[in-house]
Amino acid sequence: MILTVTLNTALDVTHRVPRLLPHASHRVTGVAERPGGKGLNVARVLGALGHPVTATGFAGGPAGTLVRELLADCPGVTDALVPCAGTTRRTLAVVDETTGDTTQFNEPGPQITAGEWSAFLARYAELVSGARAVALCGSLPPGVPVGAYATLVRTARTAGVPVLLDTSGEALRRGVAARPEIIKPNSAELAELTGSREPLPATRDARRRGAHAVVTSLGPGGLLAATPDGTWQAAPPRALSGNPTGAGDSAVAGLLSALAEGLDWPARLTRAVALSAATVHAPTAGEFDPRTYEEVRGSVKVTPL
Amino acid sequence: MILTVTLNTALDVTHRVPRLLPHASHRVTGVAERPGGKGLNVARVLGALGHPVTATGFAGGPAGTLVRELLADCPGVTDALVPCAGTTRRTLAVVDETTGDTTQFNEPGPQITAGEWSAFLARYAELVSGARAVALCGSLPPGVPVGAYATLVRTARTAGVPVLLDTSGEALRRGVAARPEIIKPNSAELAELTGSREPLPATRDARRRGAHAVVTSLGPGGLLAATPDGTWQAAPPRALSGNPTGAGDSAVAGLLSALAEGLDWPARLTRAVALSAATVHAPTAGEFDPRTYEEVRGSVKVTPL
Repeated sequence: MILTVTLNTALDVTHRVPRLLPHASHRVTGVAERPGGKGLNVARVLGALGHPVTATGFAGGPAGTLVRELLADCPGVTDALVPCAGTTRRTLAVVDETTGDTTQFNEPGPQITAGEWSAFLARYAELVSGARAVALCGSLPPGVPVGAYATLVRTARTAGVPVLLDTSGEALRRGVAARPEIIKPNSAELAELTGSREPLPATRDARRRGAHAVVTSLGPGGLLAATPDGTWQAAPPRALSGNPTGAGDSAVAGLLSALAEGLDWPARLTRAVALSAATVHAPTAGEFDPRTYEEVRGSVKVTPL
Repeated sequence: MILTVTLNTALDVTHRVPRLLPHASHRVTGVAERPGGKGLNVARVLGALGHPVTATGFAGGPAGTLVRELLADCPGVTDALVPCAGTTRRTLAVVDETTGDTTQFNEPGPQITAGEWSAFLARYAELVSGARAVALCGSLPPGVPVGAYATLVRTARTAGVPVLLDTSGEALRRGVAARPEIIKPNSAELAELTGSREPLPATRDARRRGAHAVVTSLGPGGLLAATPDGTWQAAPPRALSGNPTGAGDSAVAGLLSALAEGLDWPARLTRAVALSAATVHAPTAGEFDPRTYEEVRGSVKVTPL
């Protein structure tokens, strides 16, 4: 199985309103809820692709209970979340049906105690030993040490299990130094890590900081990968219109599933780009459209640099 | 005890954000939750005043569970909510900390089945027999017959228990015809019921439609009451600045508690106006400030018309 870690899980709530007017009262015409946080998004995509996946991290309070109930309905995903006394955060996306724009409200995560963090580390060590690959995704809730991802990377490396790290800021900086197999920054995260806004030099620089491979997301332009086997740009056949929410998480699922299958880098990038494009193009934010995926993956262009 | 009915209970969530910007992503700096829906607000105020109160209506799903947990912490309030299979709605108030303005998002209520409605009617009949007064408050969730309040008014009248009805639109129109003891419209609800925007004639007209007494809320101007014992205007000593959320529910709690204690109309109106003003002036929306209440209730001006 593939293990995904989401320390700061979320209940993602979407409210649709006819038109967003600040300081007015709105009748919500549509409500949707799903398990959220980057690692849970990755797990849902892996499960939908037919890869057995185990999801761990923290869940607590009423929103945590609901996240677990919703996760139970995601095919292929095994729930190994660790309970915490605090309450799992909600994220609220208000979709303005007139303009299509989204306004986002993100609650802070629960305070994690030292005891809960220890309980998580024990559970994680146990789960890693049975995993083919690990994804460490997203922000750290309050109370989790800022070097958390470095610790988790080292545990996986000791067990001989490859790790993909997808986070930002100081958590990324420290995690990279522990030498994960892959990191997948977007342009902003890469610039914050390296100080450079030029994608190719910055991607190569990030490798020198410790990651074996760096896959930089270029948004609609696809992916840029600096790896031990070479450097490539992988681009979709055409720019697809839609909602980019979750496109990065689908790319992670593509990279990780192809790695677990022993595919080479061009094949991994092809899958990641196709899943990403199929997510942008899907009618529901954060889901991927299987038809677009099948259609795009035959025509992703992978260019050696 | 006093019985309050909230057919469309809510989990009231408040998000504080530094500044609301449409189509941006916001870090929520403060989250608060409390049991909501007009009848539960009335129950909380009655409980805080030291009146034993029983709250009924529907609760279901994760939000319903949380409403019940929060209600358990409200002093003096007994939970007699009836479970439903649908999910209790959430209301979200986003407070812009720069301007102080609030943007409100109200989810639709749960679909109530015919079986659930019957179960509620049985529970209500049982509870009414032990009540000194009943408050019927707020909107009807989908599936509840539009004549619901008329039915509930009749049950209480048959049991000899006075009823206050606080709702709007067709539910109010039909409820009034069943001859409740008191209705408490605001100016807009009264205009919708009577077709007139002139408070005094409209208040008198509403009495002729069936209510024994009509107490119209004039906002900062206080209350206008047409009753079998006379017609009065009751006004606070000065306009108090603050948030009017919940002021109407506090007025209902004031009217009902004074009625249950056998006080006369001027005393009922004095209490309702003072509680209302103390709610507008409270630091937390929907709560009342006990000091302001004590201060104002000595100086409410009740004028016979």
